[in-house]
Amino acid sequence: MRAIALPVNLILLGSTGSIGRQALDIARAHPDKVRVRALAAHSNVALMAQQIAEFSPDVVAMADAEAASALRQQVSCRVLSGSEGVVEVASFDPADCVITAMVGAAGLQPTLAAIRMGRRIGLANKETMVVAGDLIQSMARSHQADILPVDSEHSAIYQCLMGESGMGVGKLILTASGGPFRDRALHTFAHITLEEALDHPNWDMGPKITVDSATMMNKGLEVIEARWLFDVPPDSIEVVIHPQSIIHSMVEFVDGSSKAQLGPPDMKVPIQFAMSAPGRWASNHGVLDWGADRRLTFLPPDPERYPCLPLAWQALRMGEGAGAVLNAANEEAVSLFLARRIGFTDVAPLLEGALGSISSADCGSIEARLAVDAEARSWVRQHAG
Amino acid sequence: MRAIALPVNLILLGSTGSIGRQALDIARAHPDKVRVRALAAHSNVALMAQQIAEFSPDVVAMADAEAASALRQQVSCRVLSGSEGVVEVASFDPADCVITAMVGAAGLQPTLAAIRMGRRIGLANKETMVVAGDLIQSMARSHQADILPVDSEHSAIYQCLMGESGMGVGKLILTASGGPFRDRALHTFAHITLEEALDHPNWDMGPKITVDSATMMNKGLEVIEARWLFDVPPDSIEVVIHPQSIIHSMVEFVDGSSKAQLGPPDMKVPIQFAMSAPGRWASNHGVLDWGADRRLTFLPPDPERYPCLPLAWQALRMGEGAGAVLNAANEEAVSLFLARRIGFTDVAPLLEGALGSISSADCGSIEARLAVDAEARSWVRQHAG
Repeated sequence: MRAIALPVNLILLGSTGSIGRQALDIARAHPDKVRVRALAAHSNVALMAQQIAEFSPDVVAMADAEAASALRQQVSCRVLSGSEGVVEVASFDPADCVITAMVGAAGLQPTLAAIRMGRRIGLANKETMVVAGDLIQSMARSHQADILPVDSEHSAIYQCLMGESGMGVGKLILTASGGPFRDRALHTFAHITLEEALDHPNWDMGPKITVDSATMMNKGLEVIEARWLFDVPPDSIEVVIHPQSIIHSMVEFVDGSSKAQLGPPDMKVPIQFAMSAPGRWASNHGVLDWGADRRLTFLPPDPERYPCLPLAWQALRMGEGAGAVLNAANEEAVSLFLARRIGFTDVAPLLEGALGSISSADCGSIEARLAVDAEARSWVRQHAG
Repeated sequence: MRAIALPVNLILLGSTGSIGRQALDIARAHPDKVRVRALAAHSNVALMAQQIAEFSPDVVAMADAEAASALRQQVSCRVLSGSEGVVEVASFDPADCVITAMVGAAGLQPTLAAIRMGRRIGLANKETMVVAGDLIQSMARSHQADILPVDSEHSAIYQCLMGESGMGVGKLILTASGGPFRDRALHTFAHITLEEALDHPNWDMGPKITVDSATMMNKGLEVIEARWLFDVPPDSIEVVIHPQSIIHSMVEFVDGSSKAQLGPPDMKVPIQFAMSAPGRWASNHGVLDWGADRRLTFLPPDPERYPCLPLAWQALRMGEGAGAVLNAANEEAVSLFLARRIGFTDVAPLLEGALGSISSADCGSIEARLAVDAEARSWVRQHAG
C-alpha cells in the first residue's frame, strides 16, 4: 500500500448514507488532513445541499435524475446526474482516495471507474467484492489501485496483516456477533418477526444489513469478500461468534501466533484508517477501557441456527460467478422478508435453491456477473412464498 | 528490522536453560533454517555435551571454569571458559542472531558484546533492559543491532507494531496472569508459603520468575523493559490482568484501534519469531481452537494485592538508574524468600525501601549501574528480617 501525502483528496460515493456521513464527520474533525473533492449520493437532496455548503466539493452527482435537477436549483456547485454522473464523480481528478459507500449493485461501476484511475479505494460496498472480487482484484493489480476495506472485519484483518508476508498467513478468522437470535430457541425460528430481526444488539445499521446479520448471511458474504481481498483459499477462512463485538477479526499465522484487531464497535475507526493508512490520525473515537472488568466470549457458529453461513463456502467451491448468484438471491430474499412476503426461515432455502439452479459457469466478465445476478433475483421472486 | 537470509547462523547464550532448550527444539525442527554456530551455558556439562553432539557448534563456552574443564574431557569441540569465554562466544563470527537467555546480571556483558557486533539480538534476558535499557538502546542504534524481545509480552507488542509508525502508538497494554494469588483473600497474604508462591497456574518457569509472577514484580520489570524497548513514556504503559494468558499483550493506537497478539502459552512462538521475523516459519506449536467455547476475562490490577507493580512507574520517574536498583533489590529479596529467610509480604517493602534509600542519580554508564546494583543487594540483605 502506498501512503498518501496530506491532505488526502477525497471522493465520497454514498455521502448521505450512514458510512458517508461518518466519513464526513472524519473530514470535519481533520480539516488539515482531508479535502473533500467530490460527492455522490442517490436522492437525498436536502442533506447533499448541506454537505456542499459545508465541504465545498468541486463536483457532486445524484444518481436519481430528479434529485439532481432539484439540487441544481439550490446550489452553485456543478451537479451531475444519473449513474453516468456517479461514474464521472468516481473518476474525478485530482483525487487520492475514493470511498465507495453506495449500497448494493449500484456501487460496482463507480468502483471500477475509480480503480481504472489507480486510486486508493476505501471499499465500503461489500457487493463489489462478492459479485466480482476476482475481476476487481486483477483490475486493481493492473491499475496499481490499492483496495482498503472499510467494514470492521476486513479492516481488522488488513491491520493485522500490516508488516506481515502473505506466506506467513495460516487462517483468517472473522468474528460475528451472532445477531439477535444467537440464544433464541431453534424451534421458534419459524415465528421470528420482522421487528425481531431488525433489533441488532451491537451495531446500528440499515435494515438490509441488520437482517443479514440475523441470518448471518452478512458473515457469509464477508467470507467471500475476504477470500478475494486477501487472496486466501476458502478453507483458510473461519467464522467464530463473538457476542461482544470487541475483537473485530483475527489472523492466525503459520507459526502458531495470532493477531486480533479490537475496539468498541465504531465504524469511524475503519473508515478513517482507509484514508490514513499506513499511518493513524489521533481521534476521539472511543477506546477500550481496560480499567473495568471485561469479558470476551467466543463460540463456534451452529449451521442449524445459521443455515445461510455455509452457503458462502459452497458458492466459493462452485466458482467465481456463484458469489454473484448468492448475493443477488439474498438481496431479493431479504427485500421480500422486509416486505413481509416471506418468513425468516424462508431465506436460506431460497438462497440454496438459487445457488443450485442457476449456472454460473463461464462468468468471466462483469457483464456475465450482472446477468446471473438478474437471473438469481428473478428465480427467487418466482420461487418465493 | 532487517530480514535474515536463511539459514540463520545462531548463537545461543544459556543453551541449557528453559529458553535455550526450546530454542534448540526450534533448530531441530527447522534444520534448513537454523544453523547453530555457538553455544554458552553456566555449568550443565552433561546437557552441553549432548547439545554439541547433536548440533555441532563451532565453539562453546561454560561460564563455570570447572564445568569447562570437565566438558573439555568429553568433546572435541572448542570449549571456552568463564565470563570472558561467554563474551567471546557472543562475539563469534559469522553469526546473524544471538539469543541471550542467560539468567540475571550474567547476561549483560555478553549482550553488549553481541550488540557491538551489530547482530540481531533475541533478548530473553529481561534484566539487561531493566538495568540499562537506555544505554543498550543507544548502543544498538549506533551499531545497527536489531533487538527483538523473546518474552511473550514484548514479542506480542513487537508483532502488533509491525508495519505501524511509531507516531501512531497511543498505549502499550501488557497482560498479566495475576499469578496464583489473584483471588486469594488479602488478609491471608502474610501466611503465603513458598510452595504456594511456586505454583503458577499458566506458565512453567523457573522459581525466581514464578515468585516474581506471584508478586507481579515480573510485570513491573516488563513495564520498565517495554519503556526502553519501544521508546514510549512510562504513562503510556498499562497493565491489565488476563487470567487465561491467551492475549499476550496489546497496543492501542491513537485512532482508537487496538491490536493484540494471542495464542496458547508457548514460549516457542516468541523464540522462533525472534529468528524468523519479519517472516514466519510453519510449526506445530499449538494454535488456538476457536471451535470450542472460549472465555477471555480482564480486570485491572489492585495495587493493594500487587504492591510491587506500582514501583515500576516510580522507578521510571526517578531516572534511568532506578531500574537497576529495583531489579537488584528484587533479585535479592526473592532469593531470601526462596531461602525462607523472609515472608512473601516482606518483598514489596524491601524494594520500596531500597528504591528510596539508594541514590541512582549520575548513573550514565554500565559500571555505575552495576555499582548501584551491588548497593541495592547489600541494602536488602541488611534490612531483611
